[in-house]
Amino acid sequence: MSARLPTIGLMLGDVTGIGPEICAKLLAAGAVRKDAQLAVIGDARVLELGARDAGVELAWRRYETLEAIDWSRAGVPLIDLGNVDPAQFKRGAASAESGRLTGETLKHMIDLALAGHLDGICFAPLNKGALHQGGWKFQDEHQMFAQLTGHHGFFGEMNVIKEFSTFRVTSHVALREAVNMITPERITAAISLAHDTLRAAGQRAPRIAVAALNPHGGEGGLFGDEEIRVIRPTVEKMRAGGIACDGPIPSDTIFHKALRGEYDGVVVMYHDQGQIATKLLGFNKGVTVTAGLKTVFTTPAHGTAFDIVGQGKADPGALEHALRLAARLAAARLH
Amino acid sequence: MSARLPTIGLMLGDVTGIGPEICAKLLAAGAVRKDAQLAVIGDARVLELGARDAGVELAWRRYETLEAIDWSRAGVPLIDLGNVDPAQFKRGAASAESGRLTGETLKHMIDLALAGHLDGICFAPLNKGALHQGGWKFQDEHQMFAQLTGHHGFFGEMNVIKEFSTFRVTSHVALREAVNMITPERITAAISLAHDTLRAAGQRAPRIAVAALNPHGGEGGLFGDEEIRVIRPTVEKMRAGGIACDGPIPSDTIFHKALRGEYDGVVVMYHDQGQIATKLLGFNKGVTVTAGLKTVFTTPAHGTAFDIVGQGKADPGALEHALRLAARLAAARLH
Repeated sequence: MSARLPTIGLMLGDVTGIGPEICAKLLAAGAVRKDAQLAVIGDARVLELGARDAGVELAWRRYETLEAIDWSRAGVPLIDLGNVDPAQFKRGAASAESGRLTGETLKHMIDLALAGHLDGICFAPLNKGALHQGGWKFQDEHQMFAQLTGHHGFFGEMNVIKEFSTFRVTSHVALREAVNMITPERITAAISLAHDTLRAAGQRAPRIAVAALNPHGGEGGLFGDEEIRVIRPTVEKMRAGGIACDGPIPSDTIFHKALRGEYDGVVVMYHDQGQIATKLLGFNKGVTVTAGLKTVFTTPAHGTAFDIVGQGKADPGALEHALRLAARLAAARLH
Repeated sequence: MSARLPTIGLMLGDVTGIGPEICAKLLAAGAVRKDAQLAVIGDARVLELGARDAGVELAWRRYETLEAIDWSRAGVPLIDLGNVDPAQFKRGAASAESGRLTGETLKHMIDLALAGHLDGICFAPLNKGALHQGGWKFQDEHQMFAQLTGHHGFFGEMNVIKEFSTFRVTSHVALREAVNMITPERITAAISLAHDTLRAAGQRAPRIAVAALNPHGGEGGLFGDEEIRVIRPTVEKMRAGGIACDGPIPSDTIFHKALRGEYDGVVVMYHDQGQIATKLLGFNKGVTVTAGLKTVFTTPAHGTAFDIVGQGKADPGALEHALRLAARLAAARLH
């Protein structure tokens, strides 16, 4: 019948943040046990720190390699990299060295994925500034994952909230540059990515809304003609090709339509078009996915929450959602 | 002590929409009676239609001119233009002829204001498409008001919701053009307009947040440098000049700060930056002000609501808020 369960690697996040404790909380509760083979890749000392912070009993078992894991045995399997000593770091503050090690652990996991041993990677919150200062000089972690997995072509950040998911035609570029990147090729790629990823996430027939670029959708060409020249023809071509997409829809109504349940995905033209909306709608409880790469990457949308580190009160809800989504997206590739 | 009450002209909105009925509802309830001398400028037949739709008894009294009004007498004063016969129009549908007449009534009111007989104009919902088709060929009603009042210099749309108000550096222009209009002069003008208008609206010491243009506020110049070159120096200069403003603040956090009560006004760089947020936060119940002109103009943010016209169930709340704001802004100019 169905293929084997996907193997998901869980990365404990930056040791200075709430990552270790929310991971320990979920692992102790046996999260996603039915949907994935879950292994922690990291340092045993960080996992134990997380269990202490969270106030949970956590049975874990060390393995040398993922292939060596006996998935039928109790206890959380751990590949102990032995690279992060929590005693070296002040909790609740960014550290370049911790950022360097966060990148090192992620790199190790990506190598495991490239070798075919991991189907997906879910990582607890990392500190982007620390990662950058620690020598991982990418514009964002998505660029890092794309480069380390040797990806060529379109990929992108998917932002998932309860009501809908957003996909971007352009992301971390100046707005002045973004308007020049609104091309049929990129819009086509973003709609395809939305369609494929939403299907992999379990939507049989995803309905996709495509945003306009200009105010009032350009008001018939009065305030910009990208809608007429580029966006509408591209959307129509995709729809003729069998993808359920509508647009261009002006930015100030598209999210209302998605909220009312008319769409599963929203393709936005630029970063803030989507982020203003999702952040106001509680994206902090949502999930970020790097969509379009060979390997599935998911992470909770919230950050390291330095202000509440070590108090055992951090909410593991978004991480659980990220883990489930990693399992679902990875499973779709196995079938 | 205080000067006379401001005289506010109420325009009944497009006859095909819910304007007449929400006006009648408020007038019957004696709205803003303590804060303004309120006169209806329009057609008696439209006012009576509104009263029938709303199911209210409305006493009104016809005057030839505003100067002739005896404000001590009971009954709503009406300057009967006799120009709109409701029998000529299908309710709940846009009509170019109705749009033409809506513009004509507004033009008449503006002339009254320019002659010193009205201090402010509040108009019930009009249909922008109908207005345009009716021969009033402006990009929006704000441009129309500016031209008809002979205004030169900066002015702009202010969008008011319960929690805060937004002001725009650019508005109804293509996004591609908007990025070229982010200049120290326009930002300075928008911050000044925000400061002055919020003070006139009753905020003694308004706190103003100024949005960034680029994602993550440009991430230190990595994704655009307008923040470094233009926005930050301008905000700092204004602050040194005694205006309480902060920024640039990235678009995906600025509205959270304003929602938490940290700011009274948000200056946005482009139309959708503000509209995505305010529309998600219930702007439909808010008010739009044309700020910066000699005459005060306010209107409810919602539209003509063609789907519920004539049923007496349209909510007059936003129009009441618009009337109050017109009275307050106009009063500030008299003192």
